[in-house]
Amino acid sequence: MKRVNIGILGYGTVGQGVVEVLKANAKEIERRCGYEISVKTVVKRDWSGIDTSALPFECITDAMQLVTDPEIAIVMELMGGEEPAKTLIETALKHDKHVITANKALIAKHGQALFKLARDRGLELSFEASVAGGVPVIKVLRESMSGNAIQSVAGIINGTGNFILTAMTEQGRAFADVLAEAQALGYAEADPAFDINGTDAAHKITILASLAFGIPLQFDRVYMEGIDTITPADIENAAELGFVIKHLGLAIRRENGVEIRVHPTLIPSDNMLASVKGVMNAVQVQGNAVGNSLYYGPGAGRLPTASAVVADLIDAVRELNLDSESRLAEFGFAKVLDTQALPVLSPKNFRSAYYLRIAVEDEVGVLAEMTKILAENAISIESIVQKTEAKVNNVVPLIVLTDEVNESRLDNALSAIEAMKAVREPVRRIRVEYFDY
Amino acid sequence: MKRVNIGILGYGTVGQGVVEVLKANAKEIERRCGYEISVKTVVKRDWSGIDTSALPFECITDAMQLVTDPEIAIVMELMGGEEPAKTLIETALKHDKHVITANKALIAKHGQALFKLARDRGLELSFEASVAGGVPVIKVLRESMSGNAIQSVAGIINGTGNFILTAMTEQGRAFADVLAEAQALGYAEADPAFDINGTDAAHKITILASLAFGIPLQFDRVYMEGIDTITPADIENAAELGFVIKHLGLAIRRENGVEIRVHPTLIPSDNMLASVKGVMNAVQVQGNAVGNSLYYGPGAGRLPTASAVVADLIDAVRELNLDSESRLAEFGFAKVLDTQALPVLSPKNFRSAYYLRIAVEDEVGVLAEMTKILAENAISIESIVQKTEAKVNNVVPLIVLTDEVNESRLDNALSAIEAMKAVREPVRRIRVEYFDY
Repeated sequence: MKRVNIGILGYGTVGQGVVEVLKANAKEIERRCGYEISVKTVVKRDWSGIDTSALPFECITDAMQLVTDPEIAIVMELMGGEEPAKTLIETALKHDKHVITANKALIAKHGQALFKLARDRGLELSFEASVAGGVPVIKVLRESMSGNAIQSVAGIINGTGNFILTAMTEQGRAFADVLAEAQALGYAEADPAFDINGTDAAHKITILASLAFGIPLQFDRVYMEGIDTITPADIENAAELGFVIKHLGLAIRRENGVEIRVHPTLIPSDNMLASVKGVMNAVQVQGNAVGNSLYYGPGAGRLPTASAVVADLIDAVRELNLDSESRLAEFGFAKVLDTQALPVLSPKNFRSAYYLRIAVEDEVGVLAEMTKILAENAISIESIVQKTEAKVNNVVPLIVLTDEVNESRLDNALSAIEAMKAVREPVRRIRVEYFDY
Repeated sequence: MKRVNIGILGYGTVGQGVVEVLKANAKEIERRCGYEISVKTVVKRDWSGIDTSALPFECITDAMQLVTDPEIAIVMELMGGEEPAKTLIETALKHDKHVITANKALIAKHGQALFKLARDRGLELSFEASVAGGVPVIKVLRESMSGNAIQSVAGIINGTGNFILTAMTEQGRAFADVLAEAQALGYAEADPAFDINGTDAAHKITILASLAFGIPLQFDRVYMEGIDTITPADIENAAELGFVIKHLGLAIRRENGVEIRVHPTLIPSDNMLASVKGVMNAVQVQGNAVGNSLYYGPGAGRLPTASAVVADLIDAVRELNLDSESRLAEFGFAKVLDTQALPVLSPKNFRSAYYLRIAVEDEVGVLAEMTKILAENAISIESIVQKTEAKVNNVVPLIVLTDEVNESRLDNALSAIEAMKAVREPVRRIRVEYFDY
């Protein structure tokens, strides 16, 4: 049996999971890749408290030593964060090692330069674990959907957010209450900002959009809303109309460019995404040949993430003896689709249907005035429901579903509506997606 | 741009879909594989009625000419059936061409010899389209799950059967009635036997089981039940207990071997598989690292099948310039898992929970006698419901849910129960799966 040495940067949750999977499934892995995989070296900043004598690999603290070790063929970066991870990956590539990373923020923000470096040196820089943990959506987009022009990618790609929305939906609880529970359960970080405000999902949809459309990674062009403004009343109103509210990362190909956005979304309750509960993730991919497809699994966790990392490892091992070109050619370096050909659209050019909650005084003529404003802005109305049972101080919520509308038109209409004397607070707006792109 | 010539055997629904996809997505495909793909030759038995002068490839009837053409590097077999497909694939491989097929029956029954031939010659024989059309489950099992020991695969892999069960469930209609509609809509063949009796799903689960567990293809060892015995009453009883009835292909790893079976199954209604409606397909894969994952999409159709075939094509093209070993090493030729190490278990060794419908005379003591028989066979009961509202002529159905039980024990118990004077007809039995393997 041939043998390959690997090095692992980081021995936290994921690093330990990878070591565990490589050991537990060693026979299966050898069967599949034809190599014995040997973890030669692991780097951790501080090994105190760990009995390193019991570990069958070198336990060191000097990351530079690992990424320049000539006996190591493949490096796994499982430490997270931007630096020193970025410098270490660059150094490993310059020392002709394939690199595998689970670092979504790094890929979303610095992937462009890293991929170029890897490609120019004929190396792989693999990142299956960076999006949706155990869900192999990176490979699906790069390989299984390679015969398709992708129309859209829509994903529940933040487990903490989905846990919170699921509990709010099933138990009618408020956002802050469920967030506190998620933190107690260890799902949400002490600082849950990235989960709540959409940054984490934005990192991931940046990567998926780049793969789907062959465009450069453009994290700073992603439109982002979080879940902290969603109320149990919105969830209930949506349910009455046949929708579930999910926090989605969306990338949609339009004629003139690509919409990339992250926000709470009403989706039809019979869509498969509506059945994705708790911390699970799922990504729906629509292609012009395959039609609609969906990939579901755990979005995080020690072993699911390790599963993705080890799949990348086996792919890299299979290429070790090949004089192959890097497979990174399709990742944002395409000639046919550059930033000019398929620009990321600005939010005012987005198109979406909308759920609107408008608090109005219960007076004759208000509805007529409001519908007149919508009509003047060429906004079609799918339904209007007056929630009379929620009337307080003569103010009653109107729930409006619009047809698909250009967002700048909606902005205009809502400015006019909010200027009405009978409208008592800013209009609450949540996008609705039917996925019929 | 480099260029590769391919040949297509068969110009029916799928063959035409492939030609259409290659044309419509030519730019995307070139971007992803770095080659211009040129369809040189297409074989059809009879071209009459088709304006071949408008087609940009050679239209011939001699399949042997295509599979021996030195200018063709990759052959697609899209004709179906066992012969001449088998001989043509063998000939193509012997002429050093990579082969792509969508032919599930051929792979399930003759794949072993064909894969050996391809592997020995360093060629690929790819078959993504053979199972679940647009759902890339073959690649998922071979590559994305390569770091896992697979515990189970459970799939809705016959679209016609799922269409029928969905309509029976949602509309309360009888099997024969919905089958007639499916035939009128073109979902079911004029002879729907393979869809109805489970043969089609058995072909597919044979392939998935082999990939999941590294065992040889063993179609003749698959246990098979169809959907024609399912009644609206069973579906309704199941729903009341929180289950949906789906026709599943199942492959489960046990300590002493593998269960491979195809049958109607009660599954918990909150499982993602329960949300798979109509002709859609989905495959759930459980691995010891990833946990639970699911892959969903169209199971058949011109373009979804073409999507899978073209993905295989692009993979094959990427390998054209590589002196790579065939990736077929993992397909049932493994040394670590041979037929002795992981045999296919016979049905009497299956383990499953059960739904039982027992028609009994409504008399004192019947229930006591029945539960005594179950207890004597060490069968635990999850619940018993007497359907009093369905009583006819003093005969009332009892709906029993058992815990997991060895099937030979259940056979013994049901023989004893059916011998009871108060039991008026054979016991109806349907397996229940909770997927907690």
